[in-house]
Amino acid sequence: MNISRTSYPRIVIIGGGFAGVALARKLSKLEVQVVLLDKNNYHNFQPLLYQVSTGGLEPDSIAYPIRKILKDYKNFHFRLAEVLEIEPEKKNVITNIGDLKFDYLVVASGSETNYFGNASIEAHSMAMKTIPQSLNLRSLILENFEEALLTADLNERNALMNFVIVGAGPTGVELAGALAEIKKGILPKDYPDLDTRLAQIHLIQSGDRILKEMSEVASAKAEDFLEELGVNVWKNLRVTGYDGKTVTTNTDVSFETETMVWAAGVKGAGIKGLNSEDLCTRNQRIRVNKFNQLPGYTYIFAIGDIAQMETVEHPKGYPMMAQPAIQQGKQLGDNIKLLLEQQPMVPFAYKDKGAMATIGRNKAVVDLPDYKFQGVFAWFVWMFVHLFFLIGFRNRMVVFVNWVYNYIRFDREARLIIRPYKKKFKVDNN
Amino acid sequence: MNISRTSYPRIVIIGGGFAGVALARKLSKLEVQVVLLDKNNYHNFQPLLYQVSTGGLEPDSIAYPIRKILKDYKNFHFRLAEVLEIEPEKKNVITNIGDLKFDYLVVASGSETNYFGNASIEAHSMAMKTIPQSLNLRSLILENFEEALLTADLNERNALMNFVIVGAGPTGVELAGALAEIKKGILPKDYPDLDTRLAQIHLIQSGDRILKEMSEVASAKAEDFLEELGVNVWKNLRVTGYDGKTVTTNTDVSFETETMVWAAGVKGAGIKGLNSEDLCTRNQRIRVNKFNQLPGYTYIFAIGDIAQMETVEHPKGYPMMAQPAIQQGKQLGDNIKLLLEQQPMVPFAYKDKGAMATIGRNKAVVDLPDYKFQGVFAWFVWMFVHLFFLIGFRNRMVVFVNWVYNYIRFDREARLIIRPYKKKFKVDNN
Repeated sequence: MNISRTSYPRIVIIGGGFAGVALARKLSKLEVQVVLLDKNNYHNFQPLLYQVSTGGLEPDSIAYPIRKILKDYKNFHFRLAEVLEIEPEKKNVITNIGDLKFDYLVVASGSETNYFGNASIEAHSMAMKTIPQSLNLRSLILENFEEALLTADLNERNALMNFVIVGAGPTGVELAGALAEIKKGILPKDYPDLDTRLAQIHLIQSGDRILKEMSEVASAKAEDFLEELGVNVWKNLRVTGYDGKTVTTNTDVSFETETMVWAAGVKGAGIKGLNSEDLCTRNQRIRVNKFNQLPGYTYIFAIGDIAQMETVEHPKGYPMMAQPAIQQGKQLGDNIKLLLEQQPMVPFAYKDKGAMATIGRNKAVVDLPDYKFQGVFAWFVWMFVHLFFLIGFRNRMVVFVNWVYNYIRFDREARLIIRPYKKKFKVDNN
Repeated sequence: MNISRTSYPRIVIIGGGFAGVALARKLSKLEVQVVLLDKNNYHNFQPLLYQVSTGGLEPDSIAYPIRKILKDYKNFHFRLAEVLEIEPEKKNVITNIGDLKFDYLVVASGSETNYFGNASIEAHSMAMKTIPQSLNLRSLILENFEEALLTADLNERNALMNFVIVGAGPTGVELAGALAEIKKGILPKDYPDLDTRLAQIHLIQSGDRILKEMSEVASAKAEDFLEELGVNVWKNLRVTGYDGKTVTTNTDVSFETETMVWAAGVKGAGIKGLNSEDLCTRNQRIRVNKFNQLPGYTYIFAIGDIAQMETVEHPKGYPMMAQPAIQQGKQLGDNIKLLLEQQPMVPFAYKDKGAMATIGRNKAVVDLPDYKFQGVFAWFVWMFVHLFFLIGFRNRMVVFVNWVYNYIRFDREARLIIRPYKKKFKVDNN
């Protein structure tokens, strides 16, 4: 890669997510050369992907050009590239657009969907970790309703209008709630010929409560909210397979559906070349010490979802969410400064700011460290916090306009099949 | 198609563009059953597609769900379908989702890009008639800049940063202006390593003036504006071929470019089954009489771009633009009412409301029937008129927010490669 070396040390960051961007902002104040690599040219605000899938927001309002984030920083370079392998000893990364030498490397490659080796689920289910995936799901949901109108076969119509969501973390819960609101607010108006009772939304959880990372009161209240909205919540039920038609479980229960969304697991978006003993086998995260360093290397770091920092409170590492990623990015920025000044680094200390999830209009649950609340106020807090963390004034304005409109009108206007997902609906204008 | 017949006559409309929607609105007041067919589930505001291609607007804000347009109308049905053939005598249309009988048929299928039989141009150039096409062009433009950073070969970098637009109608002119503003406002900030002088924008026109549908003063002023912005305007030059690398012309002049946008012609989006003598050979439009009826049929109509109504003032039919489409849709709505009441229909009379085009910030040209003006005021008029004709309050708000932001900040934030276009940049998260 033809990026000229300067007299400054070169720091290569893999990934422009929450962790990578937080780090880049800190590094902008140092005398370093930074190369940020990402396979997309945008930063993606993952917590709102479910609203893209359900037509509440346009994808462009939750994505932000990485080059724009970096544009005022001196000695920063961005390259649109996929990292293929890391060569730790040679201080080199191999990418699809060439090799790149580094002095310091920060792996912030994030996470991807974890199917736990189940090939049938991976082949037939929908994921919702990226913008294209979320748009595919949006197309599929809408195509299913269109197709349901065409069939006289009740079983087929049933399968088209049934939605099964596996995994009741924030993603699964928020998607289930949004689908329930579509069933109630949009379906009867857009499809007066369809029997909306057929549109069943099933949320399946292998554990004994939903939102298990949150407090028990939040879990219970979120379940109440979901039931109010008509979502069927299944607990202690494990999905074992899906052939594109039938969802099988570890019990007699099964579901006929054309749409299964898999939100039951994530794993580190690993990169070849690291010692296998540094990788956790189950979730492919990279073990790091309290300075986010990889064992055995003083010049390679990992932050965010990909990093597994095992502590007494979090023996399996911090949750794979925005907050630990942002905090580790900031902390590593400070630590790299100390490192360059040959001073001792400061160990990472996670400040738990709480967690929240929204189920529907006026329905959210918020766990702050000292205070837990649910309902209308929680919902406004959820919206405010999400607007605050979105990057970019324009994005905030556009999201705000959409939310106000959707709230007042009980509507979601981005119910557009821009790129058809099913073969049946492919058109020749692409 | 399982749509039950009622006692009302059934009117089938093919196409939910300007003409089809204008007609549907009128028919909503009559005692008729209406089936609207479209291969997309949205109405697309084509005049703003160039802003999608150049990152100024998100696609979702210029598209509007057709079902939402129809939702308050009784006896209206929408089907997401591609019409394959019309059987006029059997009063039947054949679609990819089954057959549909009609009492009255209205063809409002619009237009598509016309390559005039040039296979090399069709194979290698970009079109901008649909939202997916516009998004592909957006991805390609951005990918070209990313790729330009990677090559040390000056010819290759030159070809990546050169843009050739063929056809200087409103689409070509507006796209050229927007690209020139990107060159000036975005390129230097996002790509400080690239020599922006390489980003040449060529607008090629076979005739002797640009915007030939507008007044001579508008043409001249638009050309001045383009030159101010640094666009190279070529007149009396005809493009003869493009192999993906080199644009050849009818003279010695040729251009090396990775991106040629073909905006030099449109033709009717024809449908099989109509008598060939009703079709104009050059542009595939359907000849209609002054009531928009097809020759020989009292129950088949065509409106909008697809319809060629030849008059003394417009011997080649009305221009393929929004205004004739909207006016014909409305008029046909009134005429169908008269027809059902067994009263004589009223011949279509086109009211020319003028034409306008925007070249860049504060730079537009407007021809009203009695008054022609250019510059800042024309630009505000252009924006106001486009906001007014957009369907939907939310779309207007979102477009307005974007325009205000882009104006104040000299910015275009939707410079996102959501679905990569070039093979090189394909990622595995789709």
